[in-house]
Amino acid sequence: MTDPAPITYRDAGVNIDAQDQALASAKASVRATFTPGVLSDMGLFGGLFDLAKVGSEGHILVASADGVGTKLEVAKRAGIHDTVGRDLVQHCINDILVQGARPLFFMDYVGTGRLEPDVVSALVRGCADACRDNGLALLGGETAEMPGLYGEGDFDLVGFIVGSVARDKVLDGSRVRPGQTLIGLRSSGLHTNGYSLARKVIFERLGLGIDDRPEALGGQTVAEALLAPHRSYLELCWPMLEKNQLAALAHITGGGLLDNVPRVLGAHDAIIDRSTWETPALFQMIVDAAGIAGTDEAYQALNMGIGMVLFVADEHLEAVEAHLRDAGEDAVRIGHTVAASGDEGEVRWA
Amino acid sequence: MTDPAPITYRDAGVNIDAQDQALASAKASVRATFTPGVLSDMGLFGGLFDLAKVGSEGHILVASADGVGTKLEVAKRAGIHDTVGRDLVQHCINDILVQGARPLFFMDYVGTGRLEPDVVSALVRGCADACRDNGLALLGGETAEMPGLYGEGDFDLVGFIVGSVARDKVLDGSRVRPGQTLIGLRSSGLHTNGYSLARKVIFERLGLGIDDRPEALGGQTVAEALLAPHRSYLELCWPMLEKNQLAALAHITGGGLLDNVPRVLGAHDAIIDRSTWETPALFQMIVDAAGIAGTDEAYQALNMGIGMVLFVADEHLEAVEAHLRDAGEDAVRIGHTVAASGDEGEVRWA
Repeated sequence: MTDPAPITYRDAGVNIDAQDQALASAKASVRATFTPGVLSDMGLFGGLFDLAKVGSEGHILVASADGVGTKLEVAKRAGIHDTVGRDLVQHCINDILVQGARPLFFMDYVGTGRLEPDVVSALVRGCADACRDNGLALLGGETAEMPGLYGEGDFDLVGFIVGSVARDKVLDGSRVRPGQTLIGLRSSGLHTNGYSLARKVIFERLGLGIDDRPEALGGQTVAEALLAPHRSYLELCWPMLEKNQLAALAHITGGGLLDNVPRVLGAHDAIIDRSTWETPALFQMIVDAAGIAGTDEAYQALNMGIGMVLFVADEHLEAVEAHLRDAGEDAVRIGHTVAASGDEGEVRWA
Repeated sequence: MTDPAPITYRDAGVNIDAQDQALASAKASVRATFTPGVLSDMGLFGGLFDLAKVGSEGHILVASADGVGTKLEVAKRAGIHDTVGRDLVQHCINDILVQGARPLFFMDYVGTGRLEPDVVSALVRGCADACRDNGLALLGGETAEMPGLYGEGDFDLVGFIVGSVARDKVLDGSRVRPGQTLIGLRSSGLHTNGYSLARKVIFERLGLGIDDRPEALGGQTVAEALLAPHRSYLELCWPMLEKNQLAALAHITGGGLLDNVPRVLGAHDAIIDRSTWETPALFQMIVDAAGIAGTDEAYQALNMGIGMVLFVADEHLEAVEAHLRDAGEDAVRIGHTVAASGDEGEVRWA
């Protein structure tokens, strides 16, 4: 009787060499993100960060976790893997920016069925490049190969961000008052929300392919339109936050204007006039085909062209609008705040 | 011609109500983790944490991200979903403990194909209960329903931890010297590593079922043995860290003793005598059936019974062993350090 063949870790589907190869090729991009706060190099388990070296000592920490959602499916379909890394980082940045925080560091997680070094490397490089561009460190991360849990070419991408805010600059909605102006900043596309709906409509109902150029998109391919990276509003908004010119910020993600604006409303309603900005072509195409044009459903599933909402008191309005104009931002007054009509603040259409 | 039926977010596979339901039922557990450092309640995007309120002002931050790996597959097969949350938290705690850090807060991410409120609630509760038991806050998290990306009953669970360590107490291997004693702390089982190998061996080669009670496991079911939660070494090790009695720590995770001990060795080798502890029955069953008993492969794929290694200088040995004894810990001297024989420190078997 012969012994059965030994089962090694690699036989069981885990390829540690491919993992090393993927990480090595992303290493230079990661190193380029290291701010003076980073104390540890790659290789140790935990990343060390010194708040004192970036002027954040005594600040409050603000942390958030998120994924990219099914925008990943579009990236896979298009074979483009670096933009979703940027999406993830910039989504996370905006999520803590609305509390007044500047990002300090980011960590990524890639879960996959079979580790394709090129794909993982592109995902991590996308995160790293966005971190560098926004001045935060990619402090660490984890790549997990899990045959069986994920399909062969499938993967998920998750991000964690930590930022800091001075004690007296935390934004939590408590500075919202009636009569403040709501300024909408344009989104660059769907950002990272509504992709389950968008894919169903575009690929199934409209029967479009990833490389098609539907007339409604004016020359863009479906891939280009759907993979436009989530905007970071950090550099645009930071000077106004430093000068205490913003009473609140709302990042328009899952749940749209209808669910995200109320997070900071407290005992106020927001009156928003949807005629103040034009629905971008991609959104119009999706809501028309879905048969939900003009409905609340549309403004809950998608950002409909507005990625961030600024709450501005009258005394700062001129300065804020001058700053946005100087930055070349095509911002629009979309509404204002009033005392709440019910128990909880909500968005009402003008 | 009639209009096609409208496609809503729910039609596209995303069920926001189920999500709310899942989170509501885990809320009480999450609240129970809130330490004095937590400034924000659930609902806002980012979690706020005040270092000053937990005595961590001026400390270095230590952060880490990780998943549970294919232990999730075992949890799914067994229909037990709360233990993997504890696995994740306690794995992350140990990962930063080896740098001398005490955990401050944790964030979780659950990605899933179809949101089953009971499963998500159990996963989050598992994380929350482990956070509470270890004195850190579950500061936030994200649950993503991604039909298409994950199979119907599939999910991934990812964690992110932030801790802090006083500047003069950071452990990074620089205090390792020749002649230090290596003390091994027992693992409770596979912890969170080697499950791809273990599953292949146990379910395929040995043909065992999740509820089988193989003789080798002395009455335990396969599920019980494989799902034993990853031990947290925090409370056991903290008093020794506070007294500067430990020169280094190595958390034995993926890569086993052979890959994890060298992370802190610097220009030293570790001489480890494998006869100093008995291989636990579960490990023996796996390596025997895999045909890798006694090989380096075994000590790389699995922790083989040792979950944490303490590096102790002679002057602290008595106090450390007294502390471990008083805590009822069945610790064992597994080896010692010597000057490195090559360029890089490595583990050599005695």
